[in-house]
This record gives sequence, structure tokens and C-alpha cells, in this order.
Amino acid sequence: MAIFPKKISQLIERLKKLPGVGSKTAERFVFELLSWKEKDLELFGMGILSLKDNIWNCQECGCLYDKEQSCQFCSDKRNPHLLCIIASPKEVFSIEQTHIYNGLYHVLGHLISPLEGKDPESLNLNHLAERIKKLQTKEIIIALDSTLEGDATALFLHEYLRNQNIKITRLAFGLPIGFNFDYVDQGTLALALSGRKIL
Amino acid sequence: MAIFPKKISQLIERLKKLPGVGSKTAERFVFELLSWKEKDLELFGMGILSLKDNIWNCQECGCLYDKEQSCQFCSDKRNPHLLCIIASPKEVFSIEQTHIYNGLYHVLGHLISPLEGKDPESLNLNHLAERIKKLQTKEIIIALDSTLEGDATALFLHEYLRNQNIKITRLAFGLPIGFNFDYVDQGTLALALSGRKIL
Repeated sequence: MAIFPKKISQLIERLKKLPGVGSKTAERFVFELLSWKEKDLELFGMGILSLKDNIWNCQECGCLYDKEQSCQFCSDKRNPHLLCIIASPKEVFSIEQTHIYNGLYHVLGHLISPLEGKDPESLNLNHLAERIKKLQTKEIIIALDSTLEGDATALFLHEYLRNQNIKITRLAFGLPIGFNFDYVDQGTLALALSGRKIL
Repeated sequence: MAIFPKKISQLIERLKKLPGVGSKTAERFVFELLSWKEKDLELFGMGILSLKDNIWNCQECGCLYDKEQSCQFCSDKRNPHLLCIIASPKEVFSIEQTHIYNGLYHVLGHLISPLEGKDPESLNLNHLAERIKKLQTKEIIIALDSTLEGDATALFLHEYLRNQNIKITRLAFGLPIGFNFDYVDQGTLALALSGRKIL
């Protein structure tokens, strides 16, 4: 049976660890890379090798930033009384791309998931409580996935924060833009119905 | 507007050059890579940097092989009188995975595409003619894409090789396994009809 040259099969195995990449896609990637110029291949490889070198996690909010700069999400031009709680630093970029949020962020690091050994104690809520006190937070927006773990974490945070005279909100659920009745699931439709708005 | 840390946005731009990878997928890849252990990231980066180091193109057939070994596709255990013409070294692995071909290969390097400046002269057909003579080839299988360029190249090769008392074949066209009438295109169905076989 034909086998790929060793370097190719090794790289295929590594590429298959990326989300949504199976054998066929990984093979296409490798043969595409083989057609790249030596210089481009070097820049790509070095980019991966040095990916974490210049990226730091902000000690305050948990977002990522360039070592040479300060955290752009802790800037004093932002509304200090509005705090958005997210699970990982990735989400901040999606929210920023909406261009309608100008508050601060707080990265939990992960969601509550007892099966994976991630219990509420591991969320470092003391740091969150300290920030809320320091910032005199007036509203907390819980922006977590709509999954079992996301819902459990949102519920837990609501319980934890409820007696502090802070407005606690969660992202709205409903139909996505461009929805089509043929493809919408019942759960989303039910949420859109019960959360309907007066025009 | 929020921007990704420099290392992240650079890597996103590089990943977007892979086939079928857009901004969203590239972002997912980078944040997945950020969650990898330092060691795995290093192995991945080094795998890309050194990808071409140990891979050679066979001077005879054009297939890829490990520098430490000889070309597995020029092995003398193969039928020397059967020659399969392919466009790039990638195709050989797809054909080998069928486990029903045991002849030799000849990699053209590219297809005829006048718009991209790839004319018939660039196919290095002298080398092909020498190999056919040396190997006393009895059958040539043309295994090229079913595209405008693939069809043009197949036609050209047929003209070039026709007067040499060699059987020239091309891969069969028809319905793929698991086909469903709801999804099959008219062109394929027309080829399947005109190429129908007696049961």
C-alpha cells in the first residue's frame, strides 16, 4: 500500500487536530503547502512557532494583548460601569466586531462542566467580585454559549451576583438575521415567540 | 475597533491562503492553536518549516518520496508496461488507495492552460516519449481532472500518442457510488446513459 512520505503524513496528523479538519482536508492543506514558496512556508512555520511569544493575557480582564502594548479592552475610554462576562478571550473579538459595545470585559476562562472537573470554584470568582467592587459596576452582561454548560454557568453567575444591586442581563435569544422558516429549529422558534416584541 | 494581537492576525492571514479556509475558520484555527501545549505547537511549526526538507521528486516518474528511501512508485514489483498519466504527485495517493492499480505513473506537473501560460510544450513530452520507449508501454491510462484543462490535456495526449500502437484509455465517467437522482447533475447523467453497460 502506498504511504505518504514521512514528513507529509506527520503534518497530516497534526493538521487533523484542528477543528473540522479530517483526513481529506488535511491532505489538501499539505499538498497546497508543498506548492508554496520556501519563504512563505518559513513565515507560516515561524508564525506558528512564535504564536504565543508576544501574546499576553491581561491580568485584569483576561483578554489577549500584544506584549509591546497595553490591553486595549481595559482602556479608560471605555464605560467602566458596564461589564461583559465571557468564557474565553476569543469571544471578545466577535463582540467588538458588532461595534455597539463599549464596556469592559471579564474572561472566566472556561464554563462550569462537572464532567470535565470544572466546578464553580475554579472560576476565580473572588477576582470578579473585586473588579465589580472596584469598578462600581452597574450592569453585568452574561455573554455565554447557549449550551448546557453555558446555561449552567449563566444560572450560577446570576445566583452569585443577584444580591449586589447590579442589573444582570444575558444576550437575547431569538431568530438570526436572514432566517427562513424552513430551516429554523423548534427551540429557537419557541424562544422567539415567548420573547416577542411590540412593534 | 478591536484588532487581534499582531501574531494572531498575521497567522490568520497565512491560514486564509489554505484551500477553503476563510476568516472565520482561520480564526478558529488560531484560537485552537493558542490552546495547544507549547510542545505540540513546536512540533507543528517545525513540521511546516521542514516539510520539503526530506521530500524529493522522483526524476523518473515525478512522484514524491522520502530522501532516505527510493521511489516506491518505480518499484520493479510493478507492471512496467502499464503507465498512468496524472497531473500532480498528489493524485498518485488517491489512485493507490483504490488498491487495484499496479502499474507505473507519469506526473505531467500541470495541465494545459493557455490562459495561465501553460502550453503543450511545457509538459516535457520528450521525457514521456523516452519512458514509453524504454518501458515498452502497452497501455496508457489518462487520469486527469474532468475540467476544461483536463479534457484539453487528455485530447492533446491522445493525439500525441495515437500512432504508437499503444492502448490509450481514460478513467470512466458515470455516476458515483451512493448516487441519488435528486442530486445528480445532467452532464454526469448524460455520460452515464451514453456509457451504459450490459448487465
